[in-house]
Parts: sequence; structure tokens; C-alpha cells
Amino acid sequence: MTPASSSTTTGGVASARGFRAAGVSASIKASGRPDVALVVSDTPATAAAVFTLNKVQAAPVLVSKEHLAKSGGIVRAIVVNSGCANACTGDAGMADARTMAAETAKLAGCPPEQVLVASTGVIGVNLPMDKLKTGIPKAFAALGIDGGSQAAQAIMTTDPFPKEAAATFDVGGKTVTVGGMAKGSGMIGPNMAPHAPHATMLAFLTTDAAVAQPLLARALVEVVDDTFNAITVDGDTSTNDTAMLLASGASGATVGEAEYAAFLKALRAVCLELALGIVRGGEGATKLVTVTVSGAASVGDARKTAMAIATSLLVKTAIHGGDPNWGRLIAVAGRAGVPFDPQRAKVTIGSIVLFDNGRPYDDRAPQAAEYLRATDVSVGVDLGVGAASSTVWTCDLSAEYVKINADYRT
Amino acid sequence: MTPASSSTTTGGVASARGFRAAGVSASIKASGRPDVALVVSDTPATAAAVFTLNKVQAAPVLVSKEHLAKSGGIVRAIVVNSGCANACTGDAGMADARTMAAETAKLAGCPPEQVLVASTGVIGVNLPMDKLKTGIPKAFAALGIDGGSQAAQAIMTTDPFPKEAAATFDVGGKTVTVGGMAKGSGMIGPNMAPHAPHATMLAFLTTDAAVAQPLLARALVEVVDDTFNAITVDGDTSTNDTAMLLASGASGATVGEAEYAAFLKALRAVCLELALGIVRGGEGATKLVTVTVSGAASVGDARKTAMAIATSLLVKTAIHGGDPNWGRLIAVAGRAGVPFDPQRAKVTIGSIVLFDNGRPYDDRAPQAAEYLRATDVSVGVDLGVGAASSTVWTCDLSAEYVKINADYRT
Repeated sequence: MTPASSSTTTGGVASARGFRAAGVSASIKASGRPDVALVVSDTPATAAAVFTLNKVQAAPVLVSKEHLAKSGGIVRAIVVNSGCANACTGDAGMADARTMAAETAKLAGCPPEQVLVASTGVIGVNLPMDKLKTGIPKAFAALGIDGGSQAAQAIMTTDPFPKEAAATFDVGGKTVTVGGMAKGSGMIGPNMAPHAPHATMLAFLTTDAAVAQPLLARALVEVVDDTFNAITVDGDTSTNDTAMLLASGASGATVGEAEYAAFLKALRAVCLELALGIVRGGEGATKLVTVTVSGAASVGDARKTAMAIATSLLVKTAIHGGDPNWGRLIAVAGRAGVPFDPQRAKVTIGSIVLFDNGRPYDDRAPQAAEYLRATDVSVGVDLGVGAASSTVWTCDLSAEYVKINADYRT
Repeated sequence: MTPASSSTTTGGVASARGFRAAGVSASIKASGRPDVALVVSDTPATAAAVFTLNKVQAAPVLVSKEHLAKSGGIVRAIVVNSGCANACTGDAGMADARTMAAETAKLAGCPPEQVLVASTGVIGVNLPMDKLKTGIPKAFAALGIDGGSQAAQAIMTTDPFPKEAAATFDVGGKTVTVGGMAKGSGMIGPNMAPHAPHATMLAFLTTDAAVAQPLLARALVEVVDDTFNAITVDGDTSTNDTAMLLASGASGATVGEAEYAAFLKALRAVCLELALGIVRGGEGATKLVTVTVSGAASVGDARKTAMAIATSLLVKTAIHGGDPNWGRLIAVAGRAGVPFDPQRAKVTIGSIVLFDNGRPYDDRAPQAAEYLRATDVSVGVDLGVGAASSTVWTCDLSAEYVKINADYRT
């Protein structure tokens, strides 16, 4: 399987017409790197968003939900800071998230409820509002249609590189663009409940098609489930996860039921590229691992088992070491709590079958070890009980991961 | 909380009267270290055992279950090898496990079904039977009441040190001894189902009390649940987990309902000491971490949340780095899938409260960092919704863990 789609082009969150973006430094990060990002729609955009299912929800998550409900899904701007998650910050944190939206609304010339907010960084520390109040006007001054890359930089925390993607499709001779940016490197984990992204991952998506709010929400939920919801770095679900999608209509094209499939395809290509970027840039990652579980009784069972494999420390360290330790794969499948027949099961590393119908083929281990030297690798387990399958993506676990997380306060 | 009980004494699997043990090298391990352990009861002993709930069960697990059923819970000997798990080895593996028991039975002078077998090591590789057939007689030749320590050495895989414990109590003027040994360092993980131990952990327990089989089984199941079942190193459940308990009656004392509580106390002390030994010797571990979740709606919820915290990479790496990152603790509690009220929750590191009733006390972080320099540390989360609690034990996650597992084939 080639994980990245071929339909994406270069571009980012400001590639769709009608959007401008910026990323600036407000010195929230001690490093002085960019830490305030802004995305502004020239006209009121329809908007949809999904948020973490963690019972501890950061103030910006609560405020964004509130604003979406109050505005009826109409958004003019998204403001984001990195370096501080504004989570577990009590009443002061809620007030700060509201102020962050209000300051942005003032400069965007819209009511506060048309502004969505997001934060990422250390939990339990209050936002430095003086710095943010300087940063927001600075970001407005820097806004531009070429500002997507700066914005993608400004939302990063431990990310080793920014994540941007765009895709286009045609509606009656008019080109529609879908673009986006994402961040996330650690606290990237699954949750299996539908309709919510996982982990300290933030994704901001835009399109210049006109899309009615209910259809926009349906598309986001559908695509998130097999892209952002299908990745993991460390299995930990964050308090701040957010994916937002704005539609400006500036292309002059409208996406309705007839154009939905084409829209979904472009949106999925963008989200998958961003999601795989998060995994490739996972804390300490040196390999992108595609995990496919087949022969399951249901898609849910296949997903559950694939996620158990994708979060197993023993599997992730073995792959890091290039060790074709297929016994660990089958042992995880056996503890995943789903129907599984060891006598009919199959384990593959790449296309090399190492266990089949109850019999080991350990003599093929050297060949599998050779295969595991690649940067992009795939492993598969067939549960031997049905016809359903599911694919998820993870990264290997390195000593560097430990180093990053023993020092960094998320 | 002081995790180790004060009622234990020095001793091991051969401390209880009526048992002899041995540990020898049969060159199954490339290192030449001891790899065959034997425990023999002078007379037929009553026996109880619990096994992994993994759907992939190693041949020795299947054979031991079969033998216990056939013998009606009467056992004369336990034979164990390290260096090879004899799991996922097909029909040949089943035949090998049966031969291992038969060879032992011949020398013990008992029917094969009175021998239990256990294996630990690499999955998917067949047992080198020629070596084992030399090792078993060698172990019989070495049998002695002072052989417990050699046996504890011979069952080790990546364990940095052997685990032995013993405790005594009095029944009508007669001293009863409970002793045991355990191994386990990696593939140590929870499963939450009652009545099964978890992980590549093997525990062999003996007592010289006479205990009827049903009572012996009840005691083992009860004790395992809050000792071996309450520990984790990496969250991975093995194909080979086994805990066995033999009662010889050689002390002349009988344990019935009246003596059950005293027996349970001694058995729990031994099992807890062995279980904590596994965690202290967890792969790459530098700290023993006691995780207590209180204020839960049920004990099951408390246990589930405590295990989620105890297996979180972000929590384990933060503790490794001595970082009082309490935000990670509350974030895990929020994703554990149990009732939880962030507004009434409390997070503690040692006795230092860092979050309470929706308010952070991050100014206490330096004090908590100082506390985390210790080798034995505790963390707690109160979910704020009920009165139930649960304690589990885990270790920190170090770069050394990655090094061990990127190279070792379990």
C-alpha cells in the first residue's frame, strides 16, 4: 500500500481562494519560534469541527464548541497558539480563551462567536495573555494568501517539520481547492469512538467550494474516521484535539450531493497526507508503519486489533530495531479481545508470510529483516475468522522518543 | 504506601518442606546461562494454576491445562525452560511439550499428567529437544532443598535479577511456609479479566500446608488478582503466562476454612513481593511507580484508569525524567472511558496536590520534581465521582527499554 495519495498538490491552509493566513512569534515559546497562527476568511465561511472525546477538555475546545453552536456554523477566523495548551486552567483559562477570540474578532470585524480558537503545548499553565494580545495584531498585520507555510510553522510543538497539503478537483469547469495544515508529534493516540479526532493533533482545513454546513460536517466526520482517527504515535489522547474545516465559496463552485464524492476524495487525500505527516514526524520516529488487519469478523474488530498492534511497545521497538519479531504481532492479536483463530491466522511482514495456518516459517526471518531496513514498512495479521479489514498507521519507538518525553512538559 | 509486605522472610520455591528444586544449563540460551528449572514434590501435591487469557496459548500452557484436568490437580513436578517460549510452534511444539513432561515424569517416577510444564523466551521457534533431553536428567541430579536460588536463575530471560520470596505463619503450633519464585521483565501487561495472570511472567509457588485442591485454587485466583494481575511493564500480554501453586502437606498442618485468612495473607505477601520484583526488574526500569486511583464509581473503573495511567508512555517517560507533568496524568484519566469529573478531580504526586477542584497548583511543580528523584514513587488521581479505589504498580520507561527490545527476540 502506498499511503500518500497522488491527487495532492503542494499548498496549504491558504491555498483555497478566500482565505489568508499568518504565523508570527509572540514569545510564548521560550525558543522565540513562531507561536501564533491565524486563518481568516474574507467572507463568512460555513464551518464544521470535531473535537477530542477526552473527558478533560481544554478551554479552547469548550469555547470553540460554544461559538460554533452560537454562530450556527459561520466562521470568519481561527486563531491558534502553540507553547501552552490552556487545559486544566480553571475559570481563568476559560476567560483567556474567550479573550483570545474577542481580540481576534475585533480585528476581523466580526462577532466573537465567529472566531474559533485552538491551543497546544503544556497542560496546566495559564496563557500569557499580554504576549498573546501583542501577537494577535502582529498576525493580522502579516496576513496573506502566501501565509500558509508560516501558519503551519506557528502551530508546531515537538513536530520536526510542518505539515501542509492541498488537492484540487473540478466542478463544471471550475477548479475547487481543498487545503490544510496540521500539527502533532506526541500525545497522538486512538480512541475508537467514531466522530472525534485523537491526540494533541490540530488540523485546519479550508475549501473554496460553497458547501452547506450539514454536508460539510458530514464530510469532515466521514474523512476523519479513516485518516486522523486511524493514526497513532503513543496511544495517548489529548485534551485539545481539534479538526476544523471552513468553506468560503470563493471558487464560485457549489458542492452538493452530486459533487460530494469528488469533494470527499479531495478532502480525504489532504487529510491522509497530513495524518501520515504527523506519524512520520512522530516523536522520535524513524519509520512509518502501515498495519493492516484482515480476516476479522467486523471492521470494528479489525480496527481494534490493528490499533493494539500499532500501540504495542514490543512491536514498535522490534520494528525500530529491524527485528522481524512476528511472534509479537500474533501475541498482540491474541490479546486484543476479538474473535481470532490461531490455527487459521496469518502474519506477514511486507509480503513475506512468517506464520500461516498454525505453522511458523521462521526460516524466512532473515528476508523479513532485510525488508524492515526500509523507512516505510507494512505488517499484516489475518485473524482467520471473517472478511473484514482495517488499516492504521503508526511509527516505530526509539530511544529518542524517551529522550524527548522525559524532558518535555506537554 | 510501602509496597513490600513485612511478613516475608528470605527463601524461595524450595523453602516449604517436601520440595526440592534445581536450575541447570542445557545450552538452550546462547549465553550458556542456566535455562532448565525443576521443582519436585517428594509426595503427590495438590495443585492449582492460572494461565494467560491470550487467545494464542503456547504449547506448554495447553499441555499443563490438559495434565491438571487429567490428574485431578495432583502434581509431582514442574519443569521449566527459558530461552524458547514454544509458542506458535504448531503440532511439533505440542509434541515437544508432551515429551518435556514425559521425560520428567520418567525420572520423577510418576505418570506424565502429574508433571506441569512452562516455557519462556522467543516465540515461533521450536524447542531444541536434544538439549532439553540432556538438561532434564542434569536437573534431577542437581535437585536439593537448597536449589531454589538456582531454579530462580534458570527461569530468567531479560530479568536483571532473580525473584524469590517466602513467608511463614502458624497453625496450631506448626509452622507453615509459603515460598515461590517468579520471572518476568518484558511482555508484562494487564488484561483486566479476572482469574488470569498477565504477561510473560511465570510464578511457581509452594506451601507445605495440606490444602484441598478447591481451596488452593480459590486462594491462587484471589491473590493473583491484586498482585500479578495488578502490575505492568509494557502492557503486552504474553502467550505463556502461568502461575502455579503446589501444596505438599509436609508441615503436618492443614489449611481449611479456619486457616484460610492466614494462608491468604502469607500467599499474598509472597506474590506481592514477587510481583513488585518483576516491576523493579522491568526492562530498562529505574523506578517503581505506585499508581492509585480513588474517587471512582467502581473498583473496576478505578483499576481500568490506574492501568491506563500505568501504561501511558507519556506518564512513564515523564516519571523517568523526574518531570512532575501532572497534566499527563489527568489527560489519561480523561481518556480512560470511565465516569470522571474534572471539576472535582485531584492529582497528586507523592503527597503533593498539583490539581484540585478544577484548579492547577503548578507552582508546586518544583517540590514534586524534588520528590520524583526517589527510586520508589507514587502518583494518584481522584476521579471525583465515587468512593472506590485501586492500586497498580508500573515502572518508568527509559531509553534502555528501547535498546533491550529493539534487539531481543521474545
